[in-house]
Amino acid sequence: MYMTSSNRVASLFGIRYPIIQGGMVWCSGWRLASAVSNAGGLGLLGAGSMYPDVLREHVKRCKEATDKPFGVNLPLLYAEPDEVIRIVLEEKVPIVFTSAGSPATYTALLQSHGVKVAHVVANTRFALKAVSAGVDALVAEGFEAGGHNGIEETTTMTLIPLIRQFSKLPLIAAGGIATGSQMLAAMAMGAEGVQIGTRFAVSAESSAHPAFKQAVLDSAEGDTALLLKKLVPVRLLKNPFSQAVKEAEANGADPGVLKEMLGRGRPKKGIFEGDLEQGELEIGQAAVLLNHIETVQEIFDDLIKGLSEAKNQLDRQFNYPGLAENH
Amino acid sequence: MYMTSSNRVASLFGIRYPIIQGGMVWCSGWRLASAVSNAGGLGLLGAGSMYPDVLREHVKRCKEATDKPFGVNLPLLYAEPDEVIRIVLEEKVPIVFTSAGSPATYTALLQSHGVKVAHVVANTRFALKAVSAGVDALVAEGFEAGGHNGIEETTTMTLIPLIRQFSKLPLIAAGGIATGSQMLAAMAMGAEGVQIGTRFAVSAESSAHPAFKQAVLDSAEGDTALLLKKLVPVRLLKNPFSQAVKEAEANGADPGVLKEMLGRGRPKKGIFEGDLEQGELEIGQAAVLLNHIETVQEIFDDLIKGLSEAKNQLDRQFNYPGLAENH
Repeated sequence: MYMTSSNRVASLFGIRYPIIQGGMVWCSGWRLASAVSNAGGLGLLGAGSMYPDVLREHVKRCKEATDKPFGVNLPLLYAEPDEVIRIVLEEKVPIVFTSAGSPATYTALLQSHGVKVAHVVANTRFALKAVSAGVDALVAEGFEAGGHNGIEETTTMTLIPLIRQFSKLPLIAAGGIATGSQMLAAMAMGAEGVQIGTRFAVSAESSAHPAFKQAVLDSAEGDTALLLKKLVPVRLLKNPFSQAVKEAEANGADPGVLKEMLGRGRPKKGIFEGDLEQGELEIGQAAVLLNHIETVQEIFDDLIKGLSEAKNQLDRQFNYPGLAENH
Repeated sequence: MYMTSSNRVASLFGIRYPIIQGGMVWCSGWRLASAVSNAGGLGLLGAGSMYPDVLREHVKRCKEATDKPFGVNLPLLYAEPDEVIRIVLEEKVPIVFTSAGSPATYTALLQSHGVKVAHVVANTRFALKAVSAGVDALVAEGFEAGGHNGIEETTTMTLIPLIRQFSKLPLIAAGGIATGSQMLAAMAMGAEGVQIGTRFAVSAESSAHPAFKQAVLDSAEGDTALLLKKLVPVRLLKNPFSQAVKEAEANGADPGVLKEMLGRGRPKKGIFEGDLEQGELEIGQAAVLLNHIETVQEIFDDLIKGLSEAKNQLDRQFNYPGLAENH
């Protein structure tokens, strides 16, 4: 299946399918990003968990592994933005997705070097800032998403039409999306592409630890929760660490106590080293829809098949002569 | 626009559009329910806030006001179920939506009298129970919904495909849905109809207090939150009462304290009497998409127009020859 050439997300990034792999800490190195780009989507390197020299190495390897466009995801609050931007420009990375910070800071600079810039938002306030900053596309990410998240808890179902009300920019839906029918749902609300994190986090090419992947695949409803709302809200898989945080929060723990509990380096411990007891297991609510490890190519095949089947199913629900009659 | 005659939700209830008005405490009396049924949807009387004799009166008035099918929403935990069931059967109400309790108790009894039964669920565990109980349809209600809600916090975007994975019953999506494009999104994921609460709660025909309606219409992102999770989770609009609850929860208040804070009769105080300070203002996240009071007919016109426009927009995103070529 082909999207039309008028799909603005696909045209903007020069990709076949408007499917973006979310740049995720400790999951999305060159293997995952290049596999996604080779499959016709947009692979993103997750700079949030890479020292600058590590990022440069991943960029170089990604270029060797694919001749398709790929990008870097840059969480502005957590990495070393200046260094990352320098590497992006020196290595001529064509696309940057920024998040968790002000879109005003780097958008024009990147664009002046021909880099396409998308910015991830969870509310209209930041969406308006991103529009003012002149970004090329918006990613609207709902409450379902793994990792860091908006304080408003606005879900993807509510956020997409909300953002569409005031911006005509190419819009990418994120949060809770793991299947072709969900991709169609996002497009029904005016999104022109999707960003998928969780499903790629547990793909064969993800650099996450096998134990982390299996824990995600084994999880059930209610096993992810948005925690640490007094610091920065983050969606985590249930484990002894997150349970301890949950209990502390239920007992009224203040931000200082929570910060101490969190400490440093817990996402690496959980996602990359597979410490299921004490690691921070960042993952989205869509985990509940997944049950086995797949290659990126298998994921793409299933997404496109699912999208096509969902579209056919939807078309069967409509009676075109009746529709034409009334409008 | 007509849905096809093969739309199972519309056929099941004998309605023109598979749009159900959620049965809401203090909002959905005979005026709202009959207006919805007259507009081609399914109006539901909210028995949760009616004494049995009040419910009987509303049923009688609803029958006078419409010759179309309507139903009763029965929250099994909060009303007087036996009395309500007796009235439903005596008054020959054709449809019952049950929620907040076991679907096993009354489904067969109601069906033996020709009543169609749908059951509202927020997770697969209760969906499986409802399927076992033999319900005619499922309502899958996500985290976005107003009022009482599931502890798992599964959003509509995640819940619909999840429920569709194991049940082929007619499926109605609820939670966060207020527009035609959102209705299309739900249908894209396999739902065959939608239940809409919030938008009808602030309609002209809703029995809610004008001050409540205006507060909902004036609300912004993040102004509803799921609270009282240590009792029964409920989504409330921000006001001095909900802020007090939120603070108490942040400070570790135990269920006993929260129960005392809640007291009794707060939904009536807030929704029906318009006490914006101390009332419990139950409303869904979709509030943020709404900004003026409309009649039920205006809502239906806009929903059907929005559904049609969203379908056309979606179709333009697909390249049919390309699609045919590949599948």
